[in-house]
Amino acid sequence: MDPFGMEIKQTIRDKRISTGIEGLDSLLLGGFPQGSITLVSGTPGTGKTIVCFQYIDAGLKKGEKCLYLTSDERVNNLIYQAKEVGFNFQSFIDKGQLKFLYLDLERRDVHKEMDDEIRTGGYTRVVLDSLTPLSEVPVWLVNKGNEIIPSDLPSDRSTFPINSIQATRTHIRRIMSILEEDDCTTLVTSEIPEGSRCLSRDSISEFLVDGILLLDLDSTMDRRKLTIRKMRGTKHTLKPQDISINEGGIRLI
Amino acid sequence: MDPFGMEIKQTIRDKRISTGIEGLDSLLLGGFPQGSITLVSGTPGTGKTIVCFQYIDAGLKKGEKCLYLTSDERVNNLIYQAKEVGFNFQSFIDKGQLKFLYLDLERRDVHKEMDDEIRTGGYTRVVLDSLTPLSEVPVWLVNKGNEIIPSDLPSDRSTFPINSIQATRTHIRRIMSILEEDDCTTLVTSEIPEGSRCLSRDSISEFLVDGILLLDLDSTMDRRKLTIRKMRGTKHTLKPQDISINEGGIRLI
Amino acid sequence: MDPFGMEIKQTIRDKRISTGIEGLDSLLLGGFPQGSITLVSGTPGTGKTIVCFQYIDAGLKKGEKCLYLTSDERVNNLIYQAKEVGFNFQSFIDKGQLKFLYLDLERRDVHKEMDDEIRTGGYTRVVLDSLTPLSEVPVWLVNKGNEIIPSDLPSDRSTFPINSIQATRTHIRRIMSILEEDDCTTLVTSEIPEGSRCLSRDSISEFLVDGILLLDLDSTMDRRKLTIRKMRGTKHTLKPQDISINEGGIRLI
Amino acid sequence: MDPFGMEIKQTIRDKRISTGIEGLDSLLLGGFPQGSITLVSGTPGTGKTIVCFQYIDAGLKKGEKCLYLTSDERVNNLIYQAKEVGFNFQSFIDKGQLKFLYLDLERRDVHKEMDDEIRTGGYTRVVLDSLTPLSEVPVWLVNKGNEIIPSDLPSDRSTFPINSIQATRTHIRRIMSILEEDDCTTLVTSEIPEGSRCLSRDSISEFLVDGILLLDLDSTMDRRKLTIRKMRGTKHTLKPQDISINEGGIRLI
Amino acid sequence: MDPFGMEIKQTIRDKRISTGIEGLDSLLLGGFPQGSITLVSGTPGTGKTIVCFQYIDAGLKKGEKCLYLTSDERVNNLIYQAKEVGFNFQSFIDKGQLKFLYLDLERRDVHKEMDDEIRTGGYTRVVLDSLTPLSEVPVWLVNKGNEIIPSDLPSDRSTFPINSIQATRTHIRRIMSILEEDDCTTLVTSEIPEGSRCLSRDSISEFLVDGILLLDLDSTMDRRKLTIRKMRGTKHTLKPQDISINEGGIRLI
Amino acid sequence: MDPFGMEIKQTIRDKRISTGIEGLDSLLLGGFPQGSITLVSGTPGTGKTIVCFQYIDAGLKKGEKCLYLTSDERVNNLIYQAKEVGFNFQSFIDKGQLKFLYLDLERRDVHKEMDDEIRTGGYTRVVLDSLTPLSEVPVWLVNKGNEIIPSDLPSDRSTFPINSIQATRTHIRRIMSILEEDDCTTLVTSEIPEGSRCLSRDSISEFLVDGILLLDLDSTMDRRKLTIRKMRGTKHTLKPQDISINEGGIRLI
Repeated sequence: MDPFGMEIKQTIRDKRISTGIEGLDSLLLGGFPQGSITLVSGTPGTGKTIVCFQYIDAGLKKGEKCLYLTSDERVNNLIYQAKEVGFNFQSFIDKGQLKFLYLDLERRDVHKEMDDEIRTGGYTRVVLDSLTPLSEVPVWLVNKGNEIIPSDLPSDRSTFPINSIQATRTHIRRIMSILEEDDCTTLVTSEIPEGSRCLSRDSISEFLVDGILLLDLDSTMDRRKLTIRKMRGTKHTLKPQDISINEGGIRLI
Repeated sequence: MDPFGMEIKQTIRDKRISTGIEGLDSLLLGGFPQGSITLVSGTPGTGKTIVCFQYIDAGLKKGEKCLYLTSDERVNNLIYQAKEVGFNFQSFIDKGQLKFLYLDLERRDVHKEMDDEIRTGGYTRVVLDSLTPLSEVPVWLVNKGNEIIPSDLPSDRSTFPINSIQATRTHIRRIMSILEEDDCTTLVTSEIPEGSRCLSRDSISEFLVDGILLLDLDSTMDRRKLTIRKMRGTKHTLKPQDISINEGGIRLI
Repeated sequence: MDPFGMEIKQTIRDKRISTGIEGLDSLLLGGFPQGSITLVSGTPGTGKTIVCFQYIDAGLKKGEKCLYLTSDERVNNLIYQAKEVGFNFQSFIDKGQLKFLYLDLERRDVHKEMDDEIRTGGYTRVVLDSLTPLSEVPVWLVNKGNEIIPSDLPSDRSTFPINSIQATRTHIRRIMSILEEDDCTTLVTSEIPEGSRCLSRDSISEFLVDGILLLDLDSTMDRRKLTIRKMRGTKHTLKPQDISINEGGIRLI
Repeated sequence: MDPFGMEIKQTIRDKRISTGIEGLDSLLLGGFPQGSITLVSGTPGTGKTIVCFQYIDAGLKKGEKCLYLTSDERVNNLIYQAKEVGFNFQSFIDKGQLKFLYLDLERRDVHKEMDDEIRTGGYTRVVLDSLTPLSEVPVWLVNKGNEIIPSDLPSDRSTFPINSIQATRTHIRRIMSILEEDDCTTLVTSEIPEGSRCLSRDSISEFLVDGILLLDLDSTMDRRKLTIRKMRGTKHTLKPQDISINEGGIRLI
Repeated sequence: MDPFGMEIKQTIRDKRISTGIEGLDSLLLGGFPQGSITLVSGTPGTGKTIVCFQYIDAGLKKGEKCLYLTSDERVNNLIYQAKEVGFNFQSFIDKGQLKFLYLDLERRDVHKEMDDEIRTGGYTRVVLDSLTPLSEVPVWLVNKGNEIIPSDLPSDRSTFPINSIQATRTHIRRIMSILEEDDCTTLVTSEIPEGSRCLSRDSISEFLVDGILLLDLDSTMDRRKLTIRKMRGTKHTLKPQDISINEGGIRLI
Repeated sequence: MDPFGMEIKQTIRDKRISTGIEGLDSLLLGGFPQGSITLVSGTPGTGKTIVCFQYIDAGLKKGEKCLYLTSDERVNNLIYQAKEVGFNFQSFIDKGQLKFLYLDLERRDVHKEMDDEIRTGGYTRVVLDSLTPLSEVPVWLVNKGNEIIPSDLPSDRSTFPINSIQATRTHIRRIMSILEEDDCTTLVTSEIPEGSRCLSRDSISEFLVDGILLLDLDSTMDRRKLTIRKMRGTKHTLKPQDISINEGGIRLI
C-alpha cells in the first residue's frame, strides 16, 4: 500500500502543524493539516485537555501565538493543571504569546467576542476546550446564520426554531466557521458520556470537522488508547494506539 | 446462479453510469442505473465525499456536465479537498463543465433554486452532499407536496404538522423528485451517527432511493469497507468489500 | 408431525391464492388464504416490492383482476422496475386487467378513493405498497371509526386525540377493513428500519393481519432470507428460507 | 421437592378450571385457579387467540356458559378462524351457550356494556382478546375509579391527568375488576412487540393478574414455546414448554 | 474475612427483626435492622407478596402488631392468597393483631390516612405492597415537603413542577419518612418490568432505603433467586441465593 | 513506566489529602489533591456514603474541621450509620470539629446557605452526599451564573430556559464552584441507576470534577470493586480494585 502522495500538494497549502504528542506526528504525515479543525473526543478522564496542552506547548516552543478558549471560569486552575503535566504556561502568558480567554456563556456577545479575538489576534494555534457547553447555549440564528443572537431576544427573522436539531447544527457550523478564520489550526474538545458510541456529545460536530482524535480507556486492562478516526487529506491508520500519560503529557507507546 | 439477464432491458433504458471507483462498476453491471438516485451513507471519516468526488471525476473525464450541491459554505474547501485526493476540479469549473452550488438553508427558495438549476442546467451527474442538513429544515408542504414553503410562513393549506414524520417523509420525497428530473443520475450522502444501525440519519431516505452504498470502518482491524446494500434492477453481492483510500480515491482491494 | 388437516375446511372457504414465488406456495398449503391480508416487511433492499410484483404477476397469468395501490408518485417507475425483474405489466394495464392507483396522501378523500376502487373494481388481488406513509397521515376517526377525516378539519366528534397510539391503531384497522372488502386477497408492505426488531414500522400492523412474510438479508454471508412469521389457518415452518433474486423475481433455494 | 400441598385449600375455594390445552392442566394442578385472571402474552403469530379458543372449547364441552370479548369488528372472522383450528363455535352460539361481544371502543359506555354483560350473563369462562386496544382508550377515572368516562367529556372530578401512567394503571385495574365479577375465570391477551422483553404491551398488566402464560417462538430452530411465568397459588415449573399448533390447537410436546 | 463486628452496636439499637424466611435471617445477622426500610423488588411472579406474607407471619407468631398497606382493592383476595401459601391471617385480623389497610389512591388524604394509622397504631411491622402505584400519584409538595396535596388542587406554594423527577423523589422520600415513624420496621415492594435492570419501577427508591432484596427467576433453568443487594449496617453476601416457593412460602435451598 | 514525577510540583501546591481508605492513598500519590473535587459514584449499596465517612474520619483524626452536607432529613440516621461502621462522630460534633448541615431543598436560599457555611466555616474537608437531589432542583441562573434563584420566582434576567441541559450544567458548575471555595477538598456522591453506564445520575458532573471514584459490585462473584476513573495531576492505575466493607469501612484487598 503506497502512502498518500503528498509531494505536490505540500507545495500548495498542505503544511502540517505538529501535534506535540510524541509519535503522533509521524502517523499524521507531520501533524494536523494547516487551517484544519480537529475534534478531540473522549469520556471523562481520558486526557482531552492534556492533548490541548501539548498542542499549545508545541506551538509556544516554535514561537507561535496561541489562544486557549474555555468556558470554565477557573482559568487559573487550567494553568495549574498544565503545570502539573509539566507545561509552564504562565511565562508565555506574561510575554503575550499565549492567551487564555474565558467565554462567559451568559454574555450575549460571546460569539462576537470569540470572533474578534481570533480575527485580530494573529493566532496560528487555537484551542476550544470544550465545545460542548458553548454548543448547548440556545440561540437564534439570523442573517443567513452569520449572526447569532441569544434566545431571550425575540427574533422574527430566524428560520429555525430554537433547540431544533437544525438550530444546533447551524450553531455548531457557525462556531466552526469562526474557528477557521485567519488560517489558524484548531482543536476543539467534546465530551462523550460513558457508554455512548457517538463521537461527540452533540453527535453532529464529528461530521463538520476535518479530523477526529478519539481518546478511550480500558479499565480492566489498565490501558489508554488514542485513535485517529478521521483526518482530511491524510492517509492514516485506524488502529487504536496505546498511550501513556506521564510528566510531559501523552506519549504513544 | 445465473446472472440477472439484462440483455433486453439494456436496449430499453437501463444504461449504466460509471461510478469512478475502481472495481465497483463490475459489481454493478457497469455502474449506477441511469436516472437512479443512490444513497451514500456512513459514519464520520468513512469517505462519503470521496465517493462523490470520484463519481464527478468519472463524468468530467467523459465530457459530461456535472453539478455538486452542498450546504457547506466552504465550497473552496471542497475543491481543495478534491485536489488533495488527486482531482483538479478548478479547470472544469472554469470551462463551465462543473458547477458547485451552495445551498443556503436560510433562503426561503432553496428548493426552487435547486430545482431551477437541475431543470435548466443539462446535467447528467448530480451530487447532493449532504442530504442531512437540507432534510432537517422544517417546512410546510402545500399544493399536494409540489410546493414547499418555509415554516416561518403561516400555512393554512398544509395537511401535515411541521416536524411530523409525515412532513419529513414528504419533504425528503420532494427533494428526491427534484433530483430525478431531467434524467440525471444522482448521489446523495447521509450521515450515520456512530453506533446507529440505520442506513441514514433520518431512517426514511433509504426506503426512497434506488440504491444504497454503505461505507464503514473497523478501527481494531484497520479496515475500511464498502457494501452495496441495494441497487434497483441489479443483481449484486451483499458482501462488504474491503477498500483503501489513496491518491485517486477509493479502490476495492 | 402430521400436517394441518385442511380437507374439510377447504370445501368451505379456505381456497388458497398462489404467491407467485417458486417454492413458497408449497410451504403455505397452496398460497395465501383467500380473503386474507398478509404483511410483507423488511429493511431496505430486501425485495418487498418484488414480492408484490410476483403476486400480481401470478394473478394476471390466471386472468384475475389486480390492483396496485402506491403512494409513490412515480407509477411509471414502478412499471419500469417490474420490467427489469421480468414482468411486462403495461400490456395488462392496457387491457384493463391491472390498475396502478396513486394514493395522493394530501387529498382529504384518499381513504374514500381507495375504498371506492376496491368495492367497485372487482379485484381478486390487491397490493398496498406501502402501508407506512399512509398509516402516518394524521387523521381524526369519527362515526365509530367508519369515517376518517383529515386532521386539518376540526372534529368535535372524534374520541381519540390525533397522533395517539389509539388513533394510529384505529387508522390502521380502518385501512385493513377497507382492504378486506369484496373478498380480495391482499398484500401490504411495511418498512423496517435497519436494527429494529419490530415486524413493521408502526409495530401495530403485525397484530392486525392474517399473515406475515419477513424479508431479511445477511451482508456478511451474502444471503437473503424469507420467513413465514405467521399465516392464519396454516401450519407452516418458522425457519428462515434462503432465497435468491433473479430475473423472474424471488425464488426459494 | 415436595409439591405444593393443596389438599386442604382445594376444599375451600381453589377449584381448578381446565385450560383445554393437552398437557398444560397437569402442570397447573388441574388448570387455572377458579376466579383468577390469566394474561396470555406473545409476539405476533404465537397463538394467543388459539389459547383462548381452546379455553372456550373446554368450557363448552362441559356445558359451561362462555363469553368472548373482542374489539375486532370481524366477529365472523374469529368464528371462522376457530373453525380452521377445529372448533365449531356456531352451534354453541346458536343455542345461547357462547356469546361473542364486540366492544366498540368508540362507544362511551363500552366499560359499562362489558360490566353489564358479565354481571348478568352468568358466565363461568370469559375471554378478553385483546386487552391492548381497550387499555389504550384514553379515559378519565372518576368516583374513586369505579366510574370511567371517555376523555372527550370534561371532567373536573378526576384525580389523574389523562394518559398518565397512573391513569393507565387505574384503567387496567378497573378493567380487571370488571372481569373478576361474578366468579368467572378469565383470560386476557396482550400484544408483545417483537424485541420487547416486557410481558405485555403496557408493561403494567402483568403485575395486576393472577397468572401469566407467555407464548414465544424461535424461528431459527422452528420451535414454539409456552411458559407458565406466574400462577397464583400454584407451584409450577418455569421451564418453557415446547408446543405444536395443529388441528385441535396447541399441544405440549 | 471476619464478620462485621456487631457486638457493641447490638447493645445500642441494632436489634434485628426476623424475616420469616428460612435461611435468610442467618445471612442478615438475625434479620432486618430494627427501624429500617427494605425494598423488595422483582419482575412479575417472583414472590414479592409472599416475602411480605412471611414477614407479617413471623411478627404475628411473636405477638407483634402488624400493618399491611395495599392499594389493591381486593383485600379479601390478599387474605385468600396468604391462605394458599399457608398463612391464616383472618384469625389475627379478628383479634386486632393484624390490619389490612386499603389505600384509596383517589382520596386526597391518602398520605395523611397512612400517616395517622402508623403513628397511632403501635405497629412494629409494616408492609407497603406496593410502593409503585402510590409513588405514581401526581402530587404537589408544599410546606417543605412535609405536606402533600393532590395535583388537582392549585398550589402556588410548591417549589417543584408536578411530575418532575424532583417531585417524584421528594414524594417517595416523604412516603419513606411516614413509614419510618414510630420505630416500626418496614418492607415496601416495587415492580420491575421484565428486561429492566433498575432495582425499582421508579429507579429512585433504591437509593432511599436501608436494604434491598431482589427477587429474580431464570425460566430456562427453572430456578428462582433472592439476592441481598444492600442492607445497612450488615456485612452480607451479594450472591444470589437459590430459593423455592412451597407451602409456607419462600425458603433458601 | 516511570511514575508521574511530582517532586517539584509538591513543593508548589500539590499537597495530598488522605482518603482514609486503607490502600487507596498509596494509589493516589498520597490522597486526593488539595482543593480538588472528587465524584464518588455507584449503584445502590456500593458504599458511597461509607467512602464519605472514612474521608471525614481521616480528617477528624488529624484535627481538621469537617463539613457533611446532606439533603437527607435524617441526620441522626447518618450519624447512627457511621457508628455502625465504627465511627463515633457525635463526640466531634459536640466539640464543634464536625458539622452535619441539612440542605432543605425547598428553601429558596439553599445555595446561599451552603455557600455561607463553606466560606465562613474554615473547613478543610467537605462532603456533599449526595449531589443528585440538589442538582435536580429546577433553578434560574442569573447574574452570569453567580446567582441562583428558585424556579418559582419569575426571572426575566436568565439566559437559559429552566430544565434545559444548559441550565443543569450551569447549575452543577455553580454548585462545584461553591464547593471549591476556601481551598477545602471535597467529595460529592452521585447515584448511578443499575444498568446505566454513565458515571453520574446527570451524566454531566463527571466532566466538571477533578477526580472520579467508581464503586461497583458483582453479585454473581460476590465481589465489590473501587476504580479510580480519573484523578487530576495523578498518574494512577485504571484497574478496578477489589474491596471489602467491614468494621472500619472500605479496605482494598
